[in-house]
Amino acid sequence: MSRADVANRRKIDAALEEAEALLGDRLTTSRSVRDLHGESVTWYPTQPPDAVAYVQTTEEVSALVKICARHKVPIIAYGTGTSLEGHINAPYGGITIDFAQMNNIIRVSPEDLDCTVQAGVTRVQLNVHLRDMGMFFPIDPGTDASLGGMAATRASGTNAVRYGTMRENVLNLTVVMADGTIVQTARRARKSSAGYDLTKLIVGSEGTLGIITEVTLRLQAIPDAISAGVCPFPSVRHACDAVILAIQTGIPVARIELLDDVQIEACNAYSGLTLEETATLFLEFHGTQDGVLEQMRLFSEIIEDHGGGPFQSADQTEDRNKLWQARHDAYWANLAQKPGLKGLATDVCVPISRLADCVEETRVDIEKYGLFAPIVGHVGDGNFHLTLLIDPDDKNEMDRVNELLERLIMRALAMDGTCTGEHGVGIGKMKYLEAEHGAGVDVMRLIKKSLDPDNILNPGKVVAV
Amino acid sequence: MSRADVANRRKIDAALEEAEALLGDRLTTSRSVRDLHGESVTWYPTQPPDAVAYVQTTEEVSALVKICARHKVPIIAYGTGTSLEGHINAPYGGITIDFAQMNNIIRVSPEDLDCTVQAGVTRVQLNVHLRDMGMFFPIDPGTDASLGGMAATRASGTNAVRYGTMRENVLNLTVVMADGTIVQTARRARKSSAGYDLTKLIVGSEGTLGIITEVTLRLQAIPDAISAGVCPFPSVRHACDAVILAIQTGIPVARIELLDDVQIEACNAYSGLTLEETATLFLEFHGTQDGVLEQMRLFSEIIEDHGGGPFQSADQTEDRNKLWQARHDAYWANLAQKPGLKGLATDVCVPISRLADCVEETRVDIEKYGLFAPIVGHVGDGNFHLTLLIDPDDKNEMDRVNELLERLIMRALAMDGTCTGEHGVGIGKMKYLEAEHGAGVDVMRLIKKSLDPDNILNPGKVVAV
Repeated sequence: MSRADVANRRKIDAALEEAEALLGDRLTTSRSVRDLHGESVTWYPTQPPDAVAYVQTTEEVSALVKICARHKVPIIAYGTGTSLEGHINAPYGGITIDFAQMNNIIRVSPEDLDCTVQAGVTRVQLNVHLRDMGMFFPIDPGTDASLGGMAATRASGTNAVRYGTMRENVLNLTVVMADGTIVQTARRARKSSAGYDLTKLIVGSEGTLGIITEVTLRLQAIPDAISAGVCPFPSVRHACDAVILAIQTGIPVARIELLDDVQIEACNAYSGLTLEETATLFLEFHGTQDGVLEQMRLFSEIIEDHGGGPFQSADQTEDRNKLWQARHDAYWANLAQKPGLKGLATDVCVPISRLADCVEETRVDIEKYGLFAPIVGHVGDGNFHLTLLIDPDDKNEMDRVNELLERLIMRALAMDGTCTGEHGVGIGKMKYLEAEHGAGVDVMRLIKKSLDPDNILNPGKVVAV
Repeated sequence: MSRADVANRRKIDAALEEAEALLGDRLTTSRSVRDLHGESVTWYPTQPPDAVAYVQTTEEVSALVKICARHKVPIIAYGTGTSLEGHINAPYGGITIDFAQMNNIIRVSPEDLDCTVQAGVTRVQLNVHLRDMGMFFPIDPGTDASLGGMAATRASGTNAVRYGTMRENVLNLTVVMADGTIVQTARRARKSSAGYDLTKLIVGSEGTLGIITEVTLRLQAIPDAISAGVCPFPSVRHACDAVILAIQTGIPVARIELLDDVQIEACNAYSGLTLEETATLFLEFHGTQDGVLEQMRLFSEIIEDHGGGPFQSADQTEDRNKLWQARHDAYWANLAQKPGLKGLATDVCVPISRLADCVEETRVDIEKYGLFAPIVGHVGDGNFHLTLLIDPDDKNEMDRVNELLERLIMRALAMDGTCTGEHGVGIGKMKYLEAEHGAGVDVMRLIKKSLDPDNILNPGKVVAV
């Protein structure tokens, strides 16, 4: 052990001792628990923390952060561990705060269509709770993530084209800052011009500016009618052109998802579907009975103009659930196509006018590099995903993968897009931030340094300082 | 002149000399121009800058900010001067940057429903430009403000209930930071998880963190059908309850404005209307022909259940324009009610469930303090305005006014609302920020200090450091 390592071990031990006095057996240093908390669902190597703390209140989080601040020990917030860019890895050790026991729904206001939950509440848990009240929370990244984690990564998903992302749907956050101070980022009012928008600063900051402990969310009334369907197109371009026209003409489509031929093949095999193996849109319409019928009629006209069809609707809840389950299982369907390989999920987002170009050029690249990578996209937002099936130990393949990823991101940036539409930066996208934001990264670093001068909050992520 | 004054004068003179070399006769120190730029439309005393600079490019703004940074001279961004809380006053002198000559529409993308404009473009100018392309920009604070100013104050207005505020509708900003660095806050993608949300941090920062020079905005398709109407109610509470139910049931109303009896009386007199002088909703519905009819049918049922009506619709463009012109002229209608007095416009925003309470209690206060103050509200958002008609020289009256305002804001805060829904902080609401945000104000101050260490950007506003 070097002298620095010894000093580091000492401060960690000191912090752990105090943390254990605070939390008792809710602080654990068990190897298996630590490994689980340092292991992402994607291909990143596991980097465990020194301990995992199961907190129950905001005040406990504050006390724990104060301990870590005193000893300059890293602190990493952990929801369900489903992030995709190594957000919850602990490259410098420290204490991971697990929010699984902070899962109370604190308050629901049907009149205001909003609620406040502890950070560990998951989106499915919330929606089960809301169902009988005629409301739902629309943001749906597929996995049953915690709402604190979704706020921290600025998550979105299939419904974002109509309802926005976490950016638009978080009204207020309770946040523990790097010195342990507890801050409310806003009030429950729908809008405000009272000072800097701390809510939006914390949303998407991935635990590097503060630890989210409670989340106040906008809710939606469950629509009278929901109808879904699938529609094949001759090509990705035909499908994208149909989407552009649907958005342009103001059809308030709730979900509009593109699956390319490779992805449909995987979904057919995994989810027992029998879809034509071509570029396909999965759609959902929300509204009144008449409104949904009208939206479907308008969309059907657009399909015809773009050589698509037939449009198969799924009006029954059961059919609809089967369809969306297949969509949400796309990642697992892909893994099942190549047993033994790891999934590397990545996403970019471009202006919708460039989406067909970006997908087509990427598909050409995938062939060129001899890789297997189905494409799915939240195409109403211009956002799409690749799932590369890889063997991380195959150096030659990984070189090709990395070249493909770099080309994908530079392509998206050249189209005035972003290196990640919804997965976040974590460790994986850090190297692209300068290319995307230029001098903006310096501004981010100034903010990070001013709010976390000792760099204890999720160090080594986003804009590592 | 004190020694400090002499030193201050010297650095301002040095900055002006360099600024003149940069801009020639586009830098003016004329007394009348300076007074105009230090005079808000409301009652605040005029505080002129030392000079006004008419800039034409982002690079010029950058060069000017570098000059001011070198000499530590204040710099204040100015759009149309229509802000209401003293945002553009120059309490410490310095140079005001007027964006009137930076009014080019740089780019419009119908496919992506977005555009980029220079900061001096006004919303009416933009909408005239967009009309033939079948698009519009929905944010409408009433006055024909500049889009840079609207972004800087996080403006909203009558359409926000459906289309959001500037917070939701700015995709990207070009910003000159305090050291003259030019930053793009984001890309043109609809969503992104790539780092801290600099766009949302600058939106609403009122020129205190950076100077906005270009704005990329989301646009909307002009709906097939627009229908408007007015509906009287027995009381503010009846009207608010109807609004809550309309929002709760998901009617996508585009505008839903409350005018109380006092405001209707003023509008009748000023705009030649003949409305019943009682709490009244002004409404607008956007959608397809069928969709608008359905919205109006659903809303009519709600009206009946809440003792309102009759609902008078205004489907013709001319009638609709007359109605909304009257709404937008409410401020001038109020001034006309009390010739010789000044208007003091203020706003708060509360969760919609508390709106009726807040308006009713405020109305009782207005009577108690013997003041004249019509109330209008963007009630779909829980946001409402008082226009107090005042004589700033009447000390006794101003004491009562200030007590009323303080009680109004504390009432809104106690209801988990905000001290300003859309007007912003400027000078006028600074004293309430601590009450609203508590320790959050310290976070704001850290950000301000880190991004503008010499406090040259609109000093003395928001979180004066």
